[in-house]
Amino acid sequence: MGLKALDYETLNENVKKVQYAVRGELYLRASELQKEGKKIIFTNVGNPHALGQKPLTFPRQVVALCQAPFLLDDPNVGLMFPADAIARAKHYLSLTSGGLGAYSDSRGIPGVRKEVAEFIERRDGCDADLELYYPWEGDGILVPVPQYPLYSATISLLGGSLVPYYLEETANWGLDVNNLRESVAQARSKGLTVRAMVIINPGNPTGQCLSEANLREIINFCYQENLVLLGDEVYQQNIYQDERPFISARKVLMDMGPPISKELQLISFHTVSKGYWGECGQRGGYFEMTNLPPQTVDEIYKIASIALSPNVPAQIFMGLMVNPLKPGDISYEQFIRESQGILQSLRRRARIMTDGFNSCKNVVCNFTEGAMYSFPQIRLPLKAIEAAKKAGKVPDVFYCLKLLEATGISTVPGSGFGQKEGVFHLRTTILPAEEDMPAIMSSFKKFNDKFMDEYEDKWNQSRM
Amino acid sequence: MGLKALDYETLNENVKKVQYAVRGELYLRASELQKEGKKIIFTNVGNPHALGQKPLTFPRQVVALCQAPFLLDDPNVGLMFPADAIARAKHYLSLTSGGLGAYSDSRGIPGVRKEVAEFIERRDGCDADLELYYPWEGDGILVPVPQYPLYSATISLLGGSLVPYYLEETANWGLDVNNLRESVAQARSKGLTVRAMVIINPGNPTGQCLSEANLREIINFCYQENLVLLGDEVYQQNIYQDERPFISARKVLMDMGPPISKELQLISFHTVSKGYWGECGQRGGYFEMTNLPPQTVDEIYKIASIALSPNVPAQIFMGLMVNPLKPGDISYEQFIRESQGILQSLRRRARIMTDGFNSCKNVVCNFTEGAMYSFPQIRLPLKAIEAAKKAGKVPDVFYCLKLLEATGISTVPGSGFGQKEGVFHLRTTILPAEEDMPAIMSSFKKFNDKFMDEYEDKWNQSRM
Ligand SMILES: Cc1ncc(COP(=O)(O)O)c(C=O)c1O
Ligand SMILES: Cc1ncc(COP(=O)(O)O)c(C=O)c1O
Repeated sequence: MGLKALDYETLNENVKKVQYAVRGELYLRASELQKEGKKIIFTNVGNPHALGQKPLTFPRQVVALCQAPFLLDDPNVGLMFPADAIARAKHYLSLTSGGLGAYSDSRGIPGVRKEVAEFIERRDGCDADLELYYPWEGDGILVPVPQYPLYSATISLLGGSLVPYYLEETANWGLDVNNLRESVAQARSKGLTVRAMVIINPGNPTGQCLSEANLREIINFCYQENLVLLGDEVYQQNIYQDERPFISARKVLMDMGPPISKELQLISFHTVSKGYWGECGQRGGYFEMTNLPPQTVDEIYKIASIALSPNVPAQIFMGLMVNPLKPGDISYEQFIRESQGILQSLRRRARIMTDGFNSCKNVVCNFTEGAMYSFPQIRLPLKAIEAAKKAGKVPDVFYCLKLLEATGISTVPGSGFGQKEGVFHLRTTILPAEEDMPAIMSSFKKFNDKFMDEYEDKWNQSRM
Repeated sequence: MGLKALDYETLNENVKKVQYAVRGELYLRASELQKEGKKIIFTNVGNPHALGQKPLTFPRQVVALCQAPFLLDDPNVGLMFPADAIARAKHYLSLTSGGLGAYSDSRGIPGVRKEVAEFIERRDGCDADLELYYPWEGDGILVPVPQYPLYSATISLLGGSLVPYYLEETANWGLDVNNLRESVAQARSKGLTVRAMVIINPGNPTGQCLSEANLREIINFCYQENLVLLGDEVYQQNIYQDERPFISARKVLMDMGPPISKELQLISFHTVSKGYWGECGQRGGYFEMTNLPPQTVDEIYKIASIALSPNVPAQIFMGLMVNPLKPGDISYEQFIRESQGILQSLRRRARIMTDGFNSCKNVVCNFTEGAMYSFPQIRLPLKAIEAAKKAGKVPDVFYCLKLLEATGISTVPGSGFGQKEGVFHLRTTILPAEEDMPAIMSSFKKFNDKFMDEYEDKWNQSRM
């Protein structure tokens, strides 16, 4: 046999099957165009700093001091760093055993874990126990569609089966528990063991916030069906309306009381990449386990140990995020000003984008209640769908590529997230700078309306 | 069925099978003792900063400035940072798109990848092309025994089979290619497809450095047997003798010329955790692929994309490590002084440890030619082996636990790395502070010799 071990033909089939659109064809073409000198507006990944968002000052001061602890002995340190940043840096250094360059416990620095636990206690009003770091394995897993492809990709890589449940676009991307029941029944009839259910709240790419009533239904459903609930809550700080504030799955579960609050297995996720922090490149987060038996926790710890240690600087960002400055602290005013500035601007941008999309021909878009994305439906005329087929492209990929070439706006086609047959979307972040927004939206509208005019077929009614 | 999805009984069998001794029973007991107030000398993990090694100043200055780029606009920056650190920070910031808080390309920041490629070119005298980040999958994989359990654990987690080849303790932990042939033949007779071979050079836990001749043999063997060679070269800066300097598998391969240099598939690993940097908590590294077909590289990129981005600050450490200061740079003298100080002290400590172990009753130890470990053989008397059995412990675990309780020295039993039947070892790092070394070794000797006296059975000859 002439094949070598790492020839494509020999690779594991699960690897080949993985689909990952966020950095797929559109992204690669955008990178090419950029190299050719074209100005590209990258709205394909929720990557705020790449689009000009400034990092919060205080956490960066603290981590810089932790990286360079010799600065703490420099008589000039007070000229460049406020006293509270200095104190906080000393605090975190005292929690490590050897500073940022030492492996930490595989579960994370105990003192930082404590800060995370206290944060969850404050947020949810009940005790917390938790671990850092992120492994995985599974059979059938319920995942919302449309969904963030991290889930589909990981499940496919590990040889599991994604069991889709559809979010209702006409009900503001709400989650109907009857759909869940149907999805599970269908999966079981195919012989799958359904083991877990993922919720993304606030939603990516759909931007909806789950209500408390909806969360209760989901929890009850998981309990009845004996599923682990995986709560992806990385966007919990990103809320752009006041009717449905973020409420954690854990809080709802705890409020439901025993037996369910003592039995339902729940894993919740949070990260420093999102919120008004946007510290994506630092790679920090935690997951929190509720009602997992100690033996399972031991196994998770063992697997986490293989990677030795989570990234220590990122743990400090995590600590700073869950244990923020308090009124009266020297840097408090600046911290609040920066945070509010980011959040309020995101709220305005969510509005501008939704309204912008809804002003376009054959485009309808739900409001971005939370997270950082807009997910407009693009009602493609039949002639456009045919043109796409002729070009050998999925229709929404065809549309997004044309959008990219015409305007430099780099989006992700809805097919990367899953959508109902014959319905098309694109995803864009709401992250471009606020002052650029009107120009971006009018450039989009100009492209879209021209596209629609070109392909419009008056004999064909596009459908919802 | 009353079992829930994350009950222990339901977990994936591959997870349960994983063994990971470096953070196993000994480590947990040591942590307990520490909590009880006992002074513990943690020599179980190669974690230099945790044992007091100071980080190099220059890279920390650069990364601190990258974390807090607003310092670059502070008129006082020159009081606290040298000009070359300021220049270098600006350089790395200019390579990112959005500073340390932005996701980078999943393959790493292009500019840093270029620096890594240039480093490899300088080191090996030939072109390099490479990717950052670390996925994996496999069937049968040849792994040295004794070996670093990262390999056994990962292979077992992924459902592959470890195919052991034994290093020869009496030949200074050398690698005999005839052993390799035997191991492969045996694995094939069991129906395994042997796909890859791991070498660790310099060795962990065994500390040997592979000679050029030996590397040629290995490369020829992999070529004949159609195996990918995985070269774990994370200790390439850690060399404590002059007869066998580090030589990369890639250089040897390239020097062998075509067809083999154009065909053998090789993946080489390097990290900022080791060397005289010891930046373990930063979690940075790269792997470099030689002769992998572009389609496979695309698949690896796709899988890496799922995790979005490697840790950006760690990529800057990587850049600083492969592109160090040059003579004439302002901080050069200090950088060299610090680096040399660490390396020369490690060299002396390697000597003190080897000699110390060899002065003990029933202990024989090869010299640590490289890496950061000493791996003495402990010739346990029969009575000690029986006592261990009675206590329900593996004999070397029994010995190491007693050592821990008596002296606070936390080591890893040889059984965690694999060893021949009936032969026992322990692994310790050479990292405790040099001034503490004599006391540690005499505390060890006192414990060991007493232990041996206690269990010595004059009727039983312990064997090599
Ligand atoms: C829903 C969701 N979960 C998780 C993540 C992962 O974030 P990170 O890996 O940066 O923490 C993302 C990133 O966009 C996301 O959208
Ligand atoms: C042989 C070997 N390879 C790889 C590693 C992993 O190092 P890291 O994950 O810190 O880069 C280690 C750590 O001790 C090692 O000994």
